[in-house]
Amino acid sequence: MKSTGKMPIRAAVLTISDSASRGEREDLSGPAVVEELERIGAEIVETAILADDEMEIARRLQACAESGKVDLVVTAGGTGFAGRDVTPEATRRVIERDAPGLAELMRAESLRITPLAALSRSVCGIRGRTLIVNLPGSVRGARENLLAIARLLPHAISLLRE
Amino acid sequence: MKSTGKMPIRAAVLTISDSASRGEREDLSGPAVVEELERIGAEIVETAILADDEMEIARRLQACAESGKVDLVVTAGGTGFAGRDVTPEATRRVIERDAPGLAELMRAESLRITPLAALSRSVCGIRGRTLIVNLPGSVRGARENLLAIARLLPHAISLLRE
Amino acid sequence: MKSTGKMPIRAAVLTISDSASRGEREDLSGPAVVEELERIGAEIVETAILADDEMEIARRLQACAESGKVDLVVTAGGTGFAGRDVTPEATRRVIERDAPGLAELMRAESLRITPLAALSRSVCGIRGRTLIVNLPGSVRGARENLLAIARLLPHAISLLRE
Repeated sequence: MKSTGKMPIRAAVLTISDSASRGEREDLSGPAVVEELERIGAEIVETAILADDEMEIARRLQACAESGKVDLVVTAGGTGFAGRDVTPEATRRVIERDAPGLAELMRAESLRITPLAALSRSVCGIRGRTLIVNLPGSVRGARENLLAIARLLPHAISLLRE
Repeated sequence: MKSTGKMPIRAAVLTISDSASRGEREDLSGPAVVEELERIGAEIVETAILADDEMEIARRLQACAESGKVDLVVTAGGTGFAGRDVTPEATRRVIERDAPGLAELMRAESLRITPLAALSRSVCGIRGRTLIVNLPGSVRGARENLLAIARLLPHAISLLRE
Repeated sequence: MKSTGKMPIRAAVLTISDSASRGEREDLSGPAVVEELERIGAEIVETAILADDEMEIARRLQACAESGKVDLVVTAGGTGFAGRDVTPEATRRVIERDAPGLAELMRAESLRITPLAALSRSVCGIRGRTLIVNLPGSVRGARENLLAIARLLPHAISLLRE
């Protein structure tokens, strides 16, 4: 086991949004996620805005996981019911091990605030030593879902580093 | 985006039961589901009683989704532990996008009433613009599970129509 | 339907642990699971300690299911985030029908005790007439998770025997 107890979580934040990727809409969710991650001491090593394209999202997730430089990839957006919402499908293509408890906890906590939380199709899972977490695209939804699991992330990442 | 705000949900209700499909038992669950769906303003465009046959169920689900005339398919039955219970497996064959939050919410709400809710293997998911929802086969279980998600269905369907 | 109402649950308990399988650590979780299963009247027909090897675990699960002598296989260990934790992946290889409600209930009940419950990646599912249930590897986690579903097991197994 490497001694990694003090190394901060190295996180990538990917906003998934057709309109934000074309510059038609300002990305507010990505910065909100960055802010929450920094609050738990994470170091943000990468941010990007991607279109709602399953293969493009999957390639980026895989590149993050295989870089050896990212412990955690957090996506925001593309988890709903609209036809272009395919972030969970892209995530399933990439993960090797499912972490359903994180997605269940995010939905259960979010349901205390809004019944619409049940429409989140978020997936969480592991590829190599990298944890991937899907958040909804709204600023409020992204924050609420991330907060539901934030305190678990340091322990989860330390286990992946063993 | 098409303006569909006022178009009612077009729903198909499929009862899955060997004995009801052979006429040996009256189908009470299908009509109960129809009644609950009409209560939220849905228009019932199709009802059928199918045997517990995985490929037959899958074919019918696919036909509903590809007809362009069905927003929502609700199945009742075949979600339990008996050997012939294969509705979730048939549903998994057909859906392109999983909607786990709906199935989780149905089980969580139903658990407040009976611990046996944990034995429901219901799957919810999307094919094209059609949402597929599995309900248990008992009249009471079907009603309770549907009520747990009923208020979410209009919003879910409107997102699928975008 | 065979009359099996009074036949006890025939259970196999598999401890999944590299260190315990090499004899470097005493297996305390397996005996704790045996104790809890005997409390609900189960007959323990097999116990074993396996390394965290996906194919080896899958082969043993399959052998249990196909022996015709095991109604329930309970595994303890290998459900977490460490790189060697692959019990859920081995279980997915073997099950024919998913039983997500049992895994959801275990995590939900365990969350009342510790937020770390969300890191359990446990899978529950059915192969043939055998139910497979993953528990965490810690004695406390294994007991707590098993207790969350223990009262459902007799009914679940009786349905599988139909």
